[in-house]
Amino acid sequence: MYFDEIVKDVFQEINSLEGRGEVASYIPELRKVDPEKFGVYLSTIDNSGFGIGDCYEAFSIQSIAKVLSLSLAYRMLGEKIWERLGVEPSGTAFNSLVQLEVENGIPRNPFINAGALVISDILLTKLDHPKEDFLAFIRSLSNNSKIDYSPRIATSEKNVGYRNVALCNLIKSFGNIENEPADVLDFYFNLCSLEVNCQELSNLFLFLANDGCTLSGRRVLGQSQAKRVKALMQTCGFYDESGEFSFKVGLPGKSGVGGGIVAVHPKQYAIAVWSPRLNHKGNSYKGMKFLEEFTTKSQLSIF
Amino acid sequence: MYFDEIVKDVFQEINSLEGRGEVASYIPELRKVDPEKFGVYLSTIDNSGFGIGDCYEAFSIQSIAKVLSLSLAYRMLGEKIWERLGVEPSGTAFNSLVQLEVENGIPRNPFINAGALVISDILLTKLDHPKEDFLAFIRSLSNNSKIDYSPRIATSEKNVGYRNVALCNLIKSFGNIENEPADVLDFYFNLCSLEVNCQELSNLFLFLANDGCTLSGRRVLGQSQAKRVKALMQTCGFYDESGEFSFKVGLPGKSGVGGGIVAVHPKQYAIAVWSPRLNHKGNSYKGMKFLEEFTTKSQLSIF
Amino acid sequence: MYFDEIVKDVFQEINSLEGRGEVASYIPELRKVDPEKFGVYLSTIDNSGFGIGDCYEAFSIQSIAKVLSLSLAYRMLGEKIWERLGVEPSGTAFNSLVQLEVENGIPRNPFINAGALVISDILLTKLDHPKEDFLAFIRSLSNNSKIDYSPRIATSEKNVGYRNVALCNLIKSFGNIENEPADVLDFYFNLCSLEVNCQELSNLFLFLANDGCTLSGRRVLGQSQAKRVKALMQTCGFYDESGEFSFKVGLPGKSGVGGGIVAVHPKQYAIAVWSPRLNHKGNSYKGMKFLEEFTTKSQLSIF
Amino acid sequence: MYFDEIVKDVFQEINSLEGRGEVASYIPELRKVDPEKFGVYLSTIDNSGFGIGDCYEAFSIQSIAKVLSLSLAYRMLGEKIWERLGVEPSGTAFNSLVQLEVENGIPRNPFINAGALVISDILLTKLDHPKEDFLAFIRSLSNNSKIDYSPRIATSEKNVGYRNVALCNLIKSFGNIENEPADVLDFYFNLCSLEVNCQELSNLFLFLANDGCTLSGRRVLGQSQAKRVKALMQTCGFYDESGEFSFKVGLPGKSGVGGGIVAVHPKQYAIAVWSPRLNHKGNSYKGMKFLEEFTTKSQLSIF
Repeated sequence: MYFDEIVKDVFQEINSLEGRGEVASYIPELRKVDPEKFGVYLSTIDNSGFGIGDCYEAFSIQSIAKVLSLSLAYRMLGEKIWERLGVEPSGTAFNSLVQLEVENGIPRNPFINAGALVISDILLTKLDHPKEDFLAFIRSLSNNSKIDYSPRIATSEKNVGYRNVALCNLIKSFGNIENEPADVLDFYFNLCSLEVNCQELSNLFLFLANDGCTLSGRRVLGQSQAKRVKALMQTCGFYDESGEFSFKVGLPGKSGVGGGIVAVHPKQYAIAVWSPRLNHKGNSYKGMKFLEEFTTKSQLSIF
Repeated sequence: MYFDEIVKDVFQEINSLEGRGEVASYIPELRKVDPEKFGVYLSTIDNSGFGIGDCYEAFSIQSIAKVLSLSLAYRMLGEKIWERLGVEPSGTAFNSLVQLEVENGIPRNPFINAGALVISDILLTKLDHPKEDFLAFIRSLSNNSKIDYSPRIATSEKNVGYRNVALCNLIKSFGNIENEPADVLDFYFNLCSLEVNCQELSNLFLFLANDGCTLSGRRVLGQSQAKRVKALMQTCGFYDESGEFSFKVGLPGKSGVGGGIVAVHPKQYAIAVWSPRLNHKGNSYKGMKFLEEFTTKSQLSIF
Repeated sequence: MYFDEIVKDVFQEINSLEGRGEVASYIPELRKVDPEKFGVYLSTIDNSGFGIGDCYEAFSIQSIAKVLSLSLAYRMLGEKIWERLGVEPSGTAFNSLVQLEVENGIPRNPFINAGALVISDILLTKLDHPKEDFLAFIRSLSNNSKIDYSPRIATSEKNVGYRNVALCNLIKSFGNIENEPADVLDFYFNLCSLEVNCQELSNLFLFLANDGCTLSGRRVLGQSQAKRVKALMQTCGFYDESGEFSFKVGLPGKSGVGGGIVAVHPKQYAIAVWSPRLNHKGNSYKGMKFLEEFTTKSQLSIF
Repeated sequence: MYFDEIVKDVFQEINSLEGRGEVASYIPELRKVDPEKFGVYLSTIDNSGFGIGDCYEAFSIQSIAKVLSLSLAYRMLGEKIWERLGVEPSGTAFNSLVQLEVENGIPRNPFINAGALVISDILLTKLDHPKEDFLAFIRSLSNNSKIDYSPRIATSEKNVGYRNVALCNLIKSFGNIENEPADVLDFYFNLCSLEVNCQELSNLFLFLANDGCTLSGRRVLGQSQAKRVKALMQTCGFYDESGEFSFKVGLPGKSGVGGGIVAVHPKQYAIAVWSPRLNHKGNSYKGMKFLEEFTTKSQLSIF
């Protein structure tokens, strides 16, 4: 496989960089991770894969779960979902509360916390057994029945998640949350606590590279829906660094404060990187560097 | 040529739609255009082209010029240019003044007015004869020595451009404009007044589809620079509808209040659409519809 | 007593006005009040009093309670209290969340909800039996042992108070709330539910007219503290209509969404007005009119 | 005269404080003042006066002029003036541009720069010879025919006043400026450049202490208008420190970046203080301290 060499070269190059940035500390449990972990796994739509470093060690995917919860809600509701949230980038994190005020509780997109809370609210209403059913969806996507929530992380996040409580109640005050905020938040904190390793993560996102179908041919999203989810990742996947990621890496992707990043090259591959030290915008320092270098070396960008 | 049929079909379909939206009215001269105009031109990197409708009639490109002024400034300054402006989407237009305050006069990206004013300031400093030299750059790109500014439009815009005067002086107050605001604004209003037709416009942008080179092989931007300009178009090209365009069309593009839109499919083609009626976000109503339908039918999206 | 006649005249004049504005509806229980109620009571520091209309009927004082909770907290903490909140007017209600973001969870003043929540948090920490002790303070101030909370109103407000839950959690996320948000909110909703009539309300505020002492000579606040509380009422007592009230009435005052307004003329009197229909800024329509007319006719303003 | 002793005592006390804060530096010419200057003058409505320190040395009144331009415009237009600007405090300076956006170009009050620009626009329209007529008004108020603009200061301010140019053009874009921005700004920069000494300044404001009449009995403003101007000074006179001044000093007042402060005790006196070092909110450090101490010692506050 052609990509193997590039992954290996770039991994070595980035691995030798001195560790910069800090592990996410606002959730106590996240602090406990070894900051020097670094793993990469690339899965192609012709069913090959290649991993290196700590790619078989599970970590907390945090916000990366927002793409998966969006996918399930989008699959169930179709385009009606956009009545409750937008598809525009949000500008600075600073703006999130302001924006909700100005736009009457309609979050700008599904990848800011406000939007992910609305998606959680939708799933809570639509699913019979929300936590179990969502987990089943994840397990089926990855063909791995052992993926699970981390109650330890979920509880840790719930204990300090005052800002998310504020967001959820603000949206509720505008009428754009149907369920009780406490239930929505409980579901949301569980999603974020999912633990997977790089191999599982790249496999989980392969259906987006493959026009909405798993490699075994099961349709998860319509072709147009899959395209749209990727467009959202491209414009909104990295908080206040979405433009920077698009600018330097040129692929649709999504990051999480656990230090994971997943990126998708349509019709080619999904790639997952994990390194817990974050840059000052909250995205994995080595993860960003790796993907910038990898797309430059492989000369594969969507642009 | 394979695309001909699709362009023709979609053009007919969209042309039969009732005209929705209004012609831009804040600049008196722009109001004079016939609202029912509709033209499309597609140029491929293998040097074929196909046009339909009013594709040979010149119109005011307005904000589309911002991609061209960025390209020239980027070519001259290289990555140093990003010390003076960012690459992140801006959120709502409403935020533009707020954002400049919070971020000390550094515009979020080169395609909001604030950013385009900083780019104008850069060109004013770098070029010996700014207006003439920029025009020469445009003419050489399009192989058309007749493209010109419209003094009528430039003057009309200058007479009512109080908001741009406000923006330029606010940035100056933060020290991020070097020249006199009046000179920067004069240059800026001239850029926006450039008049081209759809054929010329799609040709002008072909170097971006072609990795930074004109079809005759002249390098305008480095390959990586061209990729980055496209990434910026993807995330920031349509004001508060950038996400929507990315979501529905899936190509890097740029619109102007004159009713023009240009989009680029990397390694394939550039396409220009013109229809003066604007939707409520300020982008061509039929232009957006056409491109959404065209990429759906041609099944060519970057995602 | 000289004021009697003016109160009577102005009452009749304003009473004959057609009822304008709506009763507060966001709290279900508040909707049940008779919108045509109108009462006034004036108490002077030489111990005389005069009432008219529905001045002996109890109503929900809502935000007026914020002056009383501030007074108790200020009495206990002294100037140290200002480490946790400011003394500046807040501009629009719209800004309240934005301002907390920009100013790191320090509310602008004790009369916006954010500030009253911080005061509630202080009392919760300082008082042994917060609800009982605060009630005892109110009862002693008014010499009326029957004043009480309305559990019905407190519960009604708690059931829809998502926005206050949002505010409290946002401040907590900045570390400026010590107790659990749920406890702070419970205490806060109880304060707001206090029910008094106009006579009791004007008596409750007489200590502010009397340089910080009750008429029986008990010192509630230092002279300088009392002056400062009045200065705060002058600049911040009427949300987004504080300037308007100062401009037209010229006295320190405080309003509540229950339709009550209390104003204080230093060294002279306290006056309470109650009329449930609110203007579009959320202050009693007839209450504002009455006080404007009353200070004009009595030619007594602090200016 | 009773006040003499207190002024003298407090002056000595504050004079011995080490100089804190910096002279305003954003206008080059203002930097040239001796930072250690300190003067006070108190004028009473029974026509006595007392001065100390540098009270006969002229300084640039800057924003203090906004009260005088408001007074003249209010006198000419009456209550109609409030169709073009509000009477509410503005919150942070930071908000000024945001607020103009949200409120469609209607400044919150006449003492923020935006409001003073609208007042300047009104005078420009109403006065035959704006600069001469305004100067005549000032000279007649003070009985001093030598008060004049400082062209040196006006020019210096114009050369760096980009932020005011921005504000004025933004308001113009909303249609709330009638004249050309350049003319409005020229008039405005001249107002701010007026030079008076403390004695002249306290005399200039005595008509506000005296219910709108000069001591010679000429009516400048109606009684109710004078009351309202004082209410505005109370709530909006000190930018982001209006609450603080009201809180600590308890009088209506107005400050300028030249280091001057004037305060008015209704029916008693006007007092002017000058000391060029500013605190971090842009108000005279010693001026604020002096007035706080003076009102405490004299036990005269409106509250």
